[in-house]
Amino acid sequence: MKDQIWLNGTIMPLAEARIGVEDRGFQFADGVYEVARIYSGRCFVLREHLERLQRSAEAIHLKLPYSIDTFFQSIEDFVAASGLSDGMVYLQVTRGCSPRNHLFPECSSTALFYTRALPPVPSPGTSRGERVLTVPDERWSKCWIKSIALLPNVLAKNEAAQSNADEAIFVDHGVVTEGSITNLFAVIGNTIVTHPAGAKVLPGITRAIVLSIAGELGIKIDERPPALEEVQAADEAFLTGTTRELMWISHWNGRQLWTQCGPTTLRLHKAFQAKVSASVEAGTT
Amino acid sequence: MKDQIWLNGTIMPLAEARIGVEDRGFQFADGVYEVARIYSGRCFVLREHLERLQRSAEAIHLKLPYSIDTFFQSIEDFVAASGLSDGMVYLQVTRGCSPRNHLFPECSSTALFYTRALPPVPSPGTSRGERVLTVPDERWSKCWIKSIALLPNVLAKNEAAQSNADEAIFVDHGVVTEGSITNLFAVIGNTIVTHPAGAKVLPGITRAIVLSIAGELGIKIDERPPALEEVQAADEAFLTGTTRELMWISHWNGRQLWTQCGPTTLRLHKAFQAKVSASVEAGTT
Repeated sequence: MKDQIWLNGTIMPLAEARIGVEDRGFQFADGVYEVARIYSGRCFVLREHLERLQRSAEAIHLKLPYSIDTFFQSIEDFVAASGLSDGMVYLQVTRGCSPRNHLFPECSSTALFYTRALPPVPSPGTSRGERVLTVPDERWSKCWIKSIALLPNVLAKNEAAQSNADEAIFVDHGVVTEGSITNLFAVIGNTIVTHPAGAKVLPGITRAIVLSIAGELGIKIDERPPALEEVQAADEAFLTGTTRELMWISHWNGRQLWTQCGPTTLRLHKAFQAKVSASVEAGTT
Repeated sequence: MKDQIWLNGTIMPLAEARIGVEDRGFQFADGVYEVARIYSGRCFVLREHLERLQRSAEAIHLKLPYSIDTFFQSIEDFVAASGLSDGMVYLQVTRGCSPRNHLFPECSSTALFYTRALPPVPSPGTSRGERVLTVPDERWSKCWIKSIALLPNVLAKNEAAQSNADEAIFVDHGVVTEGSITNLFAVIGNTIVTHPAGAKVLPGITRAIVLSIAGELGIKIDERPPALEEVQAADEAFLTGTTRELMWISHWNGRQLWTQCGPTTLRLHKAFQAKVSASVEAGTT
């Protein structure tokens, strides 16, 4: 089951999987996707990912070819058969293959998922900090939809890499929105501040879990558009994302702003990993 | 040669052409494209299209796998062999197939082109007017790049169709930018007004030809952001696009604003078709 893919209900080697050149995912970015984490052979919060997939699909008027329950079971079975312990599952649905035309066609959608191994995430206390670079947020105004129209994110991420940074942080009129593949949090005193999800911010699954954990730990939450200067002057700042959990930020535009992972980030990350462990032990996803 | 495709230098049936599921065009909208017109078996202003392709590719740091000259000759040969008289050639280049990662990979790009037959374009004097619908311009700020990240355009075009309109017109803070697949012109007295190409407007090839023709005909040109009310109150309004040339607008948001194709639109279109005829007769593209 190594390097297999589930493509429209059929399992085959990933390297042999092909789609038509007139697939609307290839010509129009007309599709949605999800990336979910696999821990100890089990999908983590898969249902939350599938529910977001459905919201994304509805937002682009795309009818998913299977119910969430069917996707859920198919992915669980696929992951179990793969023997993969730690990694991710990538899931994508497009509007399908049809002669090129902007108008929605009458055709079957294309659905696929496959897994990739990932190394275990180290504790932020032992990992180096993330280096981030500010980039202007020139993306469209429906960033809450997890669509495959990712070119702006790709360009931002590569601009960061060109400057020896790990991640690009979008700034919209002086306000920090999110990273190219992450959400961003600032810790100010006993409060975590993050931009509300919406036009410019994806409702990240890890972001939601962090907000939930913060509530449990008695850490205050302030969901509002934070000014760039405010974030840079914060006590701590961290990124969240499915594949990398929580990552503390050390450098911003080449300047070191924080020298170690702060206590609130560490506390949140420990609680996050406890949630993962509990989920794995419970055998539920 | 019917329904053939040129894919990475190999000609094969379009229906059999496939790309990998990890092609960046399919997962990231990481690619650019062009649509050029074929008249009487000859490509029209193909070089202009290829030069724009190169500018789009450079803007996303994508190195084209062939020179413009090589693309030009390959497309000319392909079109000649196809026997197609009237239609279009669709050309797309993506960053290629590589394990999913936002960072630019080291891999060969994917390049392809194929043709489609199109009916001859009727004179605007004999065709019905276009019905357009206003939609908010929520796209990214690099619309001058002809990228395959077309989901916002697809959604806009389909929103128009839902309202029984032919085309969606993007309006950005009260200013008319362009259509979902067209540029827009207003005729006010002896002046044609159109939004400058840039952040929100593609530098259309037909748009450029119309501007050039207007100069030759002594029609004044005013490239500036036009207010929606101004366009709706104009003497004439028309759309331009490669596959449909010039199209006069009749209805806006369900209201009939113009009852027939205006004289300036007609004059420009006649001059446009004369340019096409001259190009075909000269045997140059």
